[in-house]
Amino acid sequence: MELRVYYEDTDLGGIVYHSRYLNFCERARSELFFKRGEKPVWRGYHFIVRHIEATYHLPATLGDLLTVETELKEVRGARLLLYQRVRRGEELLFEMEITLVCLRGDRPARVPDHFLQVLG
Amino acid sequence: MELRVYYEDTDLGGIVYHSRYLNFCERARSELFFKRGEKPVWRGYHFIVRHIEATYHLPATLGDLLTVETELKEVRGARLLLYQRVRRGEELLFEMEITLVCLRGDRPARVPDHFLQVLG
Amino acid sequence: MELRVYYEDTDLGGIVYHSRYLNFCERARSELFFKRGEKPVWRGYHFIVRHIEATYHLPATLGDLLTVETELKEVRGARLLLYQRVRRGEELLFEMEITLVCLRGDRPARVPDHFLQVLG
Amino acid sequence: MELRVYYEDTDLGGIVYHSRYLNFCERARSELFFKRGEKPVWRGYHFIVRHIEATYHLPATLGDLLTVETELKEVRGARLLLYQRVRRGEELLFEMEITLVCLRGDRPARVPDHFLQVLG
Repeated sequence: MELRVYYEDTDLGGIVYHSRYLNFCERARSELFFKRGEKPVWRGYHFIVRHIEATYHLPATLGDLLTVETELKEVRGARLLLYQRVRRGEELLFEMEITLVCLRGDRPARVPDHFLQVLG
Repeated sequence: MELRVYYEDTDLGGIVYHSRYLNFCERARSELFFKRGEKPVWRGYHFIVRHIEATYHLPATLGDLLTVETELKEVRGARLLLYQRVRRGEELLFEMEITLVCLRGDRPARVPDHFLQVLG
Repeated sequence: MELRVYYEDTDLGGIVYHSRYLNFCERARSELFFKRGEKPVWRGYHFIVRHIEATYHLPATLGDLLTVETELKEVRGARLLLYQRVRRGEELLFEMEITLVCLRGDRPARVPDHFLQVLG
Repeated sequence: MELRVYYEDTDLGGIVYHSRYLNFCERARSELFFKRGEKPVWRGYHFIVRHIEATYHLPATLGDLLTVETELKEVRGARLLLYQRVRRGEELLFEMEITLVCLRGDRPARVPDHFLQVLG
């Protein structure tokens, strides 16, 4: 998934505000659903974030064209572990491991195959 | 209502990103409810924004302490007209007139007295 | 310019938070520069927002694909008047007139031809 | 530091969008400076984020009053390790360890005592 850095993403330090990379990664996860005409909400199933471990390598700045890559690492019951990476061309700017928990309503629920096919 | 300007509010121009003033004004409207222990959602009634006319006078910057003032100008059926102003001390930074429409579910509904008391 | 509505753009009302449309419009203005390999900052010239008059017609929601159109209406000295519109297919969701002021450093400056070619 | 959850912080899931907790924590770090009449930028020294390890325990929602606590864990050369926690009353909602790097201009620089006094 490609995205552009706009004014709203930057702060007065002249670079992208640190929490925006989490937004970029969430857009990439959701886009996996949208591009198939689906949504990351299905029959009451949805995801919440449980844990993030993120490393910032290089800053992005206004007008940069970024690529976000998403890789499914592990599924265990209601938990998904994903690896995501933000690049600018060949340069690695940001990477994280994110653990999501699948809920149905308020309760953890085994990740449905429907979701696994999309995230696949 | 007082609020502080943080990094997230600024952009690489070094000043507050223009749409953030709308957020600041929305916080001030919601805070009128929160400080009474209420919410701007009540028995299915809530507001949506219909129209904004806003003027930017002076920019705010990191660390500024801003004051947001809200004045109810007019109520007509489902519509509310508010005047809001953002100041830094005596300086006027931003002002707007905002028209809200009260909905119950999906349909316009006369603004309940419950809301008028709060905004009043 | 096309853009997608993501989680970050929505609020608990289930629709796009009102100030985000201003961000969408700013992205569209900046993208006019980026797609030519330029930036909306040039030799110290840049824009600030002076005035906005905006009307909200219909709400956008998660996963919507939106189109933003930008039309230059008037140039007078340091001032630009633009009309911008956000559509979802044929539906008009949002429209605004926005007045920008061109600054060089801190002072209003006649909009350089370089900028007019891009916005034109 | 106390802060309120507003509409802009929530998404259509009805809870606070996950990256906003990073913003809340950044506000708390910056507020340590602002409340002394200082800024987290001083003689060219400033911080960037290098690493985050964050755990989400419980979601916050509209109108919640949150408390953010910040504890300096370790200083080593240009690096600072902080522990931050977001609570709602007695409930722990979010916690993270964040590693910041102090830069002077573009280069890592030993954290000045001036900053340590504030964060200390």
